[in-house]
Amino acid sequence: MKLVTVFSVFLFPLILAEDYTFDIQHVQVPLDHFSYTGSRTFSLKYLVNDTFYLKGGPIFFYTGNEGDIEMFAQNSGFLFDIAPRFKALIVFAEHRYYGESVPFGNLSYTSPEYLGYLSSSQALADFVYLINELQKTYAPTNNVNKTPVVAFGGSYGGMLAAWLKMKYPNSVVGAIASSAPIWMFKDENPCEEFYGIVTSSFKELGGENCVNTIKKSWAVIRFLKPLPANPVKEFCSKINAPEYSDNISLLKAVGEALQIYTNYTGTTKCNDILKTADKLGDSGWGFQNYDWNFEEYSNGCFQQYGVRPRNEDVPILLYGGKDLSTANNIVFSNGRLDPWSGYGVLRNYTSDIIAIVISDGAHHSDLRVSNPNDPESVKNARQIHVNQITKWFNEYYFKH
Amino acid sequence: MKLVTVFSVFLFPLILAEDYTFDIQHVQVPLDHFSYTGSRTFSLKYLVNDTFYLKGGPIFFYTGNEGDIEMFAQNSGFLFDIAPRFKALIVFAEHRYYGESVPFGNLSYTSPEYLGYLSSSQALADFVYLINELQKTYAPTNNVNKTPVVAFGGSYGGMLAAWLKMKYPNSVVGAIASSAPIWMFKDENPCEEFYGIVTSSFKELGGENCVNTIKKSWAVIRFLKPLPANPVKEFCSKINAPEYSDNISLLKAVGEALQIYTNYTGTTKCNDILKTADKLGDSGWGFQNYDWNFEEYSNGCFQQYGVRPRNEDVPILLYGGKDLSTANNIVFSNGRLDPWSGYGVLRNYTSDIIAIVISDGAHHSDLRVSNPNDPESVKNARQIHVNQITKWFNEYYFKH
Repeated sequence: MKLVTVFSVFLFPLILAEDYTFDIQHVQVPLDHFSYTGSRTFSLKYLVNDTFYLKGGPIFFYTGNEGDIEMFAQNSGFLFDIAPRFKALIVFAEHRYYGESVPFGNLSYTSPEYLGYLSSSQALADFVYLINELQKTYAPTNNVNKTPVVAFGGSYGGMLAAWLKMKYPNSVVGAIASSAPIWMFKDENPCEEFYGIVTSSFKELGGENCVNTIKKSWAVIRFLKPLPANPVKEFCSKINAPEYSDNISLLKAVGEALQIYTNYTGTTKCNDILKTADKLGDSGWGFQNYDWNFEEYSNGCFQQYGVRPRNEDVPILLYGGKDLSTANNIVFSNGRLDPWSGYGVLRNYTSDIIAIVISDGAHHSDLRVSNPNDPESVKNARQIHVNQITKWFNEYYFKH
Repeated sequence: MKLVTVFSVFLFPLILAEDYTFDIQHVQVPLDHFSYTGSRTFSLKYLVNDTFYLKGGPIFFYTGNEGDIEMFAQNSGFLFDIAPRFKALIVFAEHRYYGESVPFGNLSYTSPEYLGYLSSSQALADFVYLINELQKTYAPTNNVNKTPVVAFGGSYGGMLAAWLKMKYPNSVVGAIASSAPIWMFKDENPCEEFYGIVTSSFKELGGENCVNTIKKSWAVIRFLKPLPANPVKEFCSKINAPEYSDNISLLKAVGEALQIYTNYTGTTKCNDILKTADKLGDSGWGFQNYDWNFEEYSNGCFQQYGVRPRNEDVPILLYGGKDLSTANNIVFSNGRLDPWSGYGVLRNYTSDIIAIVISDGAHHSDLRVSNPNDPESVKNARQIHVNQITKWFNEYYFKH
């Protein structure tokens, strides 16, 4: 325990502020959980809030994603909203290689030798390791049962929460996986799904004009060379941030992302579209015709990081692809306005794998702090989360 | 495909010989499946028999254990016995760091830098990788379904087969895990279970005299220092070989293992027991009082290999401990005479996790080639395997 810090959560654009207090903690975790070439460990940061915790209560465990853990703690007020009723300890675990949890300090990103331990497999094992430590520290009074843990995560963090439950089913009793595009890998969904949802969201929110305006920007897709090395990646990195509390900010983010295409060359004019109008025609969205090319992607990775992804099948082999029949106790929630929902689980899979489609929801809106102005669909989603978590605890205590 | 080799399977002490033909194949697999520090691969050996295979048929996949893969192929005649009725391809995959599948040749065992990639996690990932390749090579005619794969394994290989189904549930439709002591880790079972079964097996097979004779040998346990560095390990290595086709060979093996204690010092006399008789008394089995000491074990590992196991909890964190509720389609078979059965799954867990206790069975007798003289209990176990495999295929084809 180092310090007590106070974060002010200003939910943009809502004027709603709450102060949450965290202990900053660290745990030494193995750099490499799956091999034994060395015994190096590093310090993984996590935040703990015990305001609502009572001995014997569960642990709410946020599986941190690609950024400083404080950012996710600030934007996941839902955990604080529901912790009192469960007497839960709240923990936000930082993802390795982000924030302060960099295994090799400033060298961490300099070469594959250092960066190579950044993988979802290793990150999940960090979380399992930390959860085991927490279960010892926050053991129930009777010393018989383990403290049950619920995983929470949004976006990539939601993928991790779901995978944690799938790959280490005994580490957590259940997972709330918000806006988790776990089916975005090879052949799982058409690549254009993302852009289809962008289109319909823009149509709905901004009208046909807006759509047409944006449509023009796609013309540049015909000329891939003037774009940055990884246009899709850069596009996604802008649109994948966890800041879209509402439709307006979603729109802003997508707009900003699109600048990669519209402003990068500085030469694209609206009427450039005329040049390729015959080709575009009704087919419209140029990006829908952008073929996913693993080799190109692999080359891009190698140029930027000195590392290649090994095989396009790997994520599916690791995480089982679209067959969730052996998983249980996961809620997949997706905002219908969120383009990432195109790769999410949108239908109940079994009685234990629940899907919520939030009609007025953006990227993991349900994990944010509640607000009287929230759409009904978001409120309903949160209620389902509470119901499922209650069910998981009941099952757990019945069995143990 | 390099060569065609012919193995003669002489089932000791039965005079039963069959010739099985294998293609020796190799696949390049990543040295490290979970990190990206390098892109090194190595050649994993596997054996293929397609005598009974018809296009569209399944794959029987033996998850190789600690030794040359030929040894396991020679002693797993059950797969050949049942392959014709399923039109199955038979594959025996070698475990990394054994046989010819050594990633760094002669250097492989020389230092942690080379040896560190020998772990069950990496081995399982090798198998998943190879299965994926096989499913491409031996795709069904319609190109829609993946070829279903059943995992088979005995002893440590049985643990791998079970873990493969648990950790990669979509890689195989089911697993026959014969004599797999998956519950031998921290606090999962009393350490003395193994020796309790040895006692009762010896009592049953050799009478009270035999037991008493052996009992005397335990006296040396009181003097740990004169024993080799890892007495338990050496003991287990002798008793863990896959050669116990019947009670007699089991007895011989245990007897040989016990020599570590009786002959290592060369000074132990039967009447030495008198010296500690007051301490032994009714408690008898000195080994039952041998406390498992993780720190001692860790020190032993470090001395021998320059590597320490990281945390006693790791196997349980990785493989879920005694909670199998999220696993499915595994048959755990154990011979009641086999001391390793003390750490096996001996009761049906769910309708999908079946346990078979083979009353007259030794260490994975059920995986051996059938023989008219086999005890009824072994024949019954094999029939249950066939029934379960049939059920798994039916489920699979119903779903796909």
